[in-house]
Amino acid sequence: MADKKSIAMNMTRYITETVSDSEFITYVTEKILYNGQSDYQQIQVFETKAFGRILMLDQAVQFTDVDEFIYHEMLTHMPMLVHPKPERILIVGGGDGGAAREALRHPEVKNLELCEIDEKVCEISRKYFPQIATSFDDPRFKLNIGDGIARLKGLREGAVDVIIIDGTDPTPMAIGLYSADFYRTIHRALGENGVFGTLAGSPYFHPEWTKLVYRELSKIFPKVAMYTATVPTYPGFLWAFCVASKGQDPRGLDRSKRLASMEDDLKYLNCGLFNAVFALPSFIRRMIEED
Amino acid sequence: MADKKSIAMNMTRYITETVSDSEFITYVTEKILYNGQSDYQQIQVFETKAFGRILMLDQAVQFTDVDEFIYHEMLTHMPMLVHPKPERILIVGGGDGGAAREALRHPEVKNLELCEIDEKVCEISRKYFPQIATSFDDPRFKLNIGDGIARLKGLREGAVDVIIIDGTDPTPMAIGLYSADFYRTIHRALGENGVFGTLAGSPYFHPEWTKLVYRELSKIFPKVAMYTATVPTYPGFLWAFCVASKGQDPRGLDRSKRLASMEDDLKYLNCGLFNAVFALPSFIRRMIEED
Repeated sequence: MADKKSIAMNMTRYITETVSDSEFITYVTEKILYNGQSDYQQIQVFETKAFGRILMLDQAVQFTDVDEFIYHEMLTHMPMLVHPKPERILIVGGGDGGAAREALRHPEVKNLELCEIDEKVCEISRKYFPQIATSFDDPRFKLNIGDGIARLKGLREGAVDVIIIDGTDPTPMAIGLYSADFYRTIHRALGENGVFGTLAGSPYFHPEWTKLVYRELSKIFPKVAMYTATVPTYPGFLWAFCVASKGQDPRGLDRSKRLASMEDDLKYLNCGLFNAVFALPSFIRRMIEED
Repeated sequence: MADKKSIAMNMTRYITETVSDSEFITYVTEKILYNGQSDYQQIQVFETKAFGRILMLDQAVQFTDVDEFIYHEMLTHMPMLVHPKPERILIVGGGDGGAAREALRHPEVKNLELCEIDEKVCEISRKYFPQIATSFDDPRFKLNIGDGIARLKGLREGAVDVIIIDGTDPTPMAIGLYSADFYRTIHRALGENGVFGTLAGSPYFHPEWTKLVYRELSKIFPKVAMYTATVPTYPGFLWAFCVASKGQDPRGLDRSKRLASMEDDLKYLNCGLFNAVFALPSFIRRMIEED
């Protein structure tokens, strides 16, 4: 999850991620567990003392053992909870299985399709992050290896209740996932009260990305709400997410009953936080409102 | 603001802060503006592209131009707003003037004393961070160079309305600022409805510190509330703060009127956030409640 201006990698001890032209973060590795190239990207898994195992794609940290729960919970449960009855779920990307693990905690789910372009990510996650890739054998779970945009275009109107994009940065390769055109395809695939959830970048390091997602979604969906969560091992640390709804306003909903049934299994989200995270720091509010 | 296990410093181009034994953050410097030793600590000021100027004390980043507002606003305004009428203010530490700048935005303030042990920090801040050290000539402002603990012990009972500690990490030198004994001294110095505000570490990197502050304060004050804010250039990123009150519970107060008068000048805090930040992620809530 970072600009990739330059990367230094020393297989024997250090792995460095470049955050901006002023800052880079170096991890002291205990062991390189995997380093390979799939058809789409470089995949690396390494072990650290403070963060446990870390997954890197194209030299950008995707998650670590110790804080993956924050990103996966906050990306997934917010759109799931905004929908009044999330039965049919589509996750685009997220081949590691973390978002699927969270979505399947909701007893309303009847089927969940994970559409991941890079099968190798699923393989590596099942091998090195078994506590994340818990859902691959769930009877409600279906893995679809292929292109997410094509899959969404091929869906019939109103086919799903919740769509979640668990993708990479808006690099030239992934920029198609951050456009009004794409959001129109998503809107069409969603049923009544349908809800869409996506990451919206770091307001510090990718303000243009944060603004873009909010602006383009607001053109297509009647209700769009931004919220934030802190992910210590993503450069930028305070990350923005958007939830876009065809029905209810995401803000001010009472989901205490649904949340109570799974709160013991969650490490980050709880009833109080579900509504509180929509309260944005002023500089972010001004940033997205200025357009 | 970091464990200091090892530090690499190359005066020509890179300055590195050690976060833990698994991670360090390197800043690419454009220019070293100051590098000296006071009677108490090493003080460094350097320029970066992405963060502007950065102040380091004993090789731990204290703040940067671009995000100092988050820490200073969240440390200061929360206790100030919890107090119903904050007229007499004492800040211990904070020689840079950032907390004083924020506190003096409150029209209720009649006098503010800044008790800083290291005069050199004030000097350096006035020279290199004039937008932070704005309050030194305010008629309500009084600078007291000396030891904060001694100053607090010397105060008569009930002498001040709000006390804010703007100190360094709980290193052996500063550990006295994080004990029940010290909090008892603070409680005594505070008047009716008195409020105390302090940083409580990073729940990721200093869980013991976070728990210690909450536990020790809860022994002394009837109402203690923890809240969080994300400071991108503090390792740990999500930081915990505590506000301890002799009177009103910090949670659920309506301070919209007082906040509205200064909201245009603030970059982080606003009415919605004032109450929302007390909603803690579950792992932090469990951490402080387990004792």
